[in-house]
Amino acid sequence: MAMVAERNDNRIAAALERLSARFGERLQTGMALREQHAHTTTYIPNQPPDGVLFPESTEEVQEAVRICAEHRVPIIPFGVGTSLEGHVNAPRGGICFDMSRMKRVLAVNREDLDCTVEPGITREELNQYLRDTGLFFPIDPGANATLGGMTATRASGTNAVRYGTMRENVLSLDVVLADGRKITTARRARKTSAGYDLTRLFVGSEGTLGVITAITLRLHGIPQAISSGVCPFPSVEAACNAVIMIIQMGIPIARIELVNTLGVQAINRYSKTAFPEGPCLFVEFHGTEAGVAEQAQMFGEIAAEFSGGRLDWASAAEERQRLWKARHDFHWSTVTLRPGCKVLATDVCVPISRLADCIVETEADIAETGLIAPIVGHVGDGNFHVAVLMDMDNRDEVRRAESFVSRLNMRALSMGGTCTGEHGIGQGKMRYLETEHGAGVEVMRSIKQALDPLNIMNPGKIFDMTGG
Amino acid sequence: MAMVAERNDNRIAAALERLSARFGERLQTGMALREQHAHTTTYIPNQPPDGVLFPESTEEVQEAVRICAEHRVPIIPFGVGTSLEGHVNAPRGGICFDMSRMKRVLAVNREDLDCTVEPGITREELNQYLRDTGLFFPIDPGANATLGGMTATRASGTNAVRYGTMRENVLSLDVVLADGRKITTARRARKTSAGYDLTRLFVGSEGTLGVITAITLRLHGIPQAISSGVCPFPSVEAACNAVIMIIQMGIPIARIELVNTLGVQAINRYSKTAFPEGPCLFVEFHGTEAGVAEQAQMFGEIAAEFSGGRLDWASAAEERQRLWKARHDFHWSTVTLRPGCKVLATDVCVPISRLADCIVETEADIAETGLIAPIVGHVGDGNFHVAVLMDMDNRDEVRRAESFVSRLNMRALSMGGTCTGEHGIGQGKMRYLETEHGAGVEVMRSIKQALDPLNIMNPGKIFDMTGG
Repeated sequence: MAMVAERNDNRIAAALERLSARFGERLQTGMALREQHAHTTTYIPNQPPDGVLFPESTEEVQEAVRICAEHRVPIIPFGVGTSLEGHVNAPRGGICFDMSRMKRVLAVNREDLDCTVEPGITREELNQYLRDTGLFFPIDPGANATLGGMTATRASGTNAVRYGTMRENVLSLDVVLADGRKITTARRARKTSAGYDLTRLFVGSEGTLGVITAITLRLHGIPQAISSGVCPFPSVEAACNAVIMIIQMGIPIARIELVNTLGVQAINRYSKTAFPEGPCLFVEFHGTEAGVAEQAQMFGEIAAEFSGGRLDWASAAEERQRLWKARHDFHWSTVTLRPGCKVLATDVCVPISRLADCIVETEADIAETGLIAPIVGHVGDGNFHVAVLMDMDNRDEVRRAESFVSRLNMRALSMGGTCTGEHGIGQGKMRYLETEHGAGVEVMRSIKQALDPLNIMNPGKIFDMTGG
Repeated sequence: MAMVAERNDNRIAAALERLSARFGERLQTGMALREQHAHTTTYIPNQPPDGVLFPESTEEVQEAVRICAEHRVPIIPFGVGTSLEGHVNAPRGGICFDMSRMKRVLAVNREDLDCTVEPGITREELNQYLRDTGLFFPIDPGANATLGGMTATRASGTNAVRYGTMRENVLSLDVVLADGRKITTARRARKTSAGYDLTRLFVGSEGTLGVITAITLRLHGIPQAISSGVCPFPSVEAACNAVIMIIQMGIPIARIELVNTLGVQAINRYSKTAFPEGPCLFVEFHGTEAGVAEQAQMFGEIAAEFSGGRLDWASAAEERQRLWKARHDFHWSTVTLRPGCKVLATDVCVPISRLADCIVETEADIAETGLIAPIVGHVGDGNFHVAVLMDMDNRDEVRRAESFVSRLNMRALSMGGTCTGEHGIGQGKMRYLETEHGAGVEVMRSIKQALDPLNIMNPGKIFDMTGG
């Protein structure tokens, strides 16, 4: 990429020397480790950083940021690298801040239903930690991502329809800014009108405004009753129309996931399941015993109205886990549809009234373009993913796939949607941001310029700064 | 205030002339009208603007902003003036933009549960407009505020515990920036990870970053069943502990409002009601018939555990309206406790685990200080208001009231809370912002400087810019 030309080897060498003197073995420069710390999950090329630093405290992050700032060297914060849009690449070189040694739970406030954690803890580790409190952290992007990474990309996933996204579930952040200053973005109170919403500014800023070093999260009570199931529909359209009615009726459904025919086939093959091989809704209800029973009954009535089949229930915890593990392994299921291929992940989100149109048009486009590309969606939010499998050696196929994705993103934008519901812009979607936000991108650049005038915080992500 | 010294009469006169030439009778300069367009609701002094402009479209707002920018004249956006912290005052003079002629509903998307409105519409007008759609906009700060004002102050109110605040219920904004550019902050999709969260940056920015000219709001289905009631408790502490348990149990209560003894007395006197004259919880449940019944039963069990009395029910719509009208008229009820006095409104919000402590200490402080100051609270969120009645001619009393408020705010901050849960900072709470946010205020100033380098957007609110 063009950006690489802007790296400055002398400055990087000087910063590495300073960091090595200060952090010793906790600065690593071996190529294998550096490659593991750049992008690995999709077709986006791997662009390794020049060194990987393992800070252990906010103060160490501040020190390291000051050294990098002094030498104008890029900083790339890193959780576990599950991002799909190249967020952890180092197109201009620089230092990866691997936050895996900062994974403590700093506080759990049961009465307030919140906790404060360091950014390197993963969501599974957090829920494991919370298991005896009666509380859980609901946001579940599928991958066992870190809370730092999830905050930085404004992640959501299967149960955002009930519990919201990281936007709604982060109460406060500690952030080390590009000049080494540390701020706390808010108090622990549930709501506030005290000044600009700095918390929401950093949620979703993809490491371009600072390094997150602590996160205060909302927690939720583990529901008394949980019930899951899979319901087949005669068409994607019928399934989408059922979803629209469920949302309109205000049924507080906890998860409602669409998988199209090819997607179900991939899941069945990979996970040795036997779901009906047509469009399916994977659903889950949370509540009291009576509440869950009522929701399930209302769901059944609506599904029947749209010619849905019998809901195949999984109320036992073990069955539920198997069901959702199969759904969460969708990414790996699709990879096995064409071994050796790379995945081009898409992530559009549209107003729910346009969801059926958008998916139906997209399926027709896939068929016409001759791609292998199953679909799965967090349809309660209007968000769906097409996993386009590409043989990277087939230049024609890569071109067709890329133009398909471009059409998909423009289709979503033309329907009032966004090019990314939850993955973020990173490197992969930069070209769509201007179309989506227009003059708003200039406002984002002004904010970036004000808070990171040297452009050292994860440069080359979300948008380019003129003159970089 | 010191700021007034910074006004520049020549520039203001030049801007008034240009605006008058362009907008004719829609620029008004009569003193009575100007005073009505400055602060009128609390003890904060009235600081009128130099002129009041009535724009009728986004394009007119852009034109008028460009004229003001050219002459470096302050712009103060105005809804209906219900704010409590001096947001609509003009300490440096300038032009009030009265948005009351921009109150159209631009779109209602029933399937998507959203609508787009102009900023001058009030929440009652919006709900009246929506009455045949089966949908409603839940945020209810009591006053019949405009949606523009509610967005600008990040308002919430009695049912935020269930439906969230303006933060969660604004999907997108059209904003005219300080140089006249217009941006749309987001698409209509329910969630997005496309770049910085500009929507949340403008929600709660109190007119200091731009003029809001359109708002896309989430709507909610009118619940099948609604039930309200009033439940007396032996002490504020018992009531608070019941609230904590209700929240912890995950009961999706729609409203849960505490009124202390003096507050209930004021309400009874003003609204001719007969609520039990001790600490009371005013509650409301939304859901299906069965769901509301279950919630009410669970509430009853928890209330009994904390020695609560019998819940006095109001299921009929008319009774419910009377109940909530009485609660909403709290402000006017308190004013009649001491005719001729001014109200000093407070608005702290603390983590719910500290709520009982905070209210009990505050009641003791009120008693010691010898003030007349009833309490009401959105206790499900940890937010409560003390309405301090002050005889403005009694300098000693004003001093005692101000030092009480200072202690209250510091008490909330020391408990992890905020000095404002929903009213905003305005002029009234600027002195507490630094304590609450520390270095974060510098970040806010950097953003303000980047987006409004001339400091013409509602200057002298939230924080001062050095050099103004």
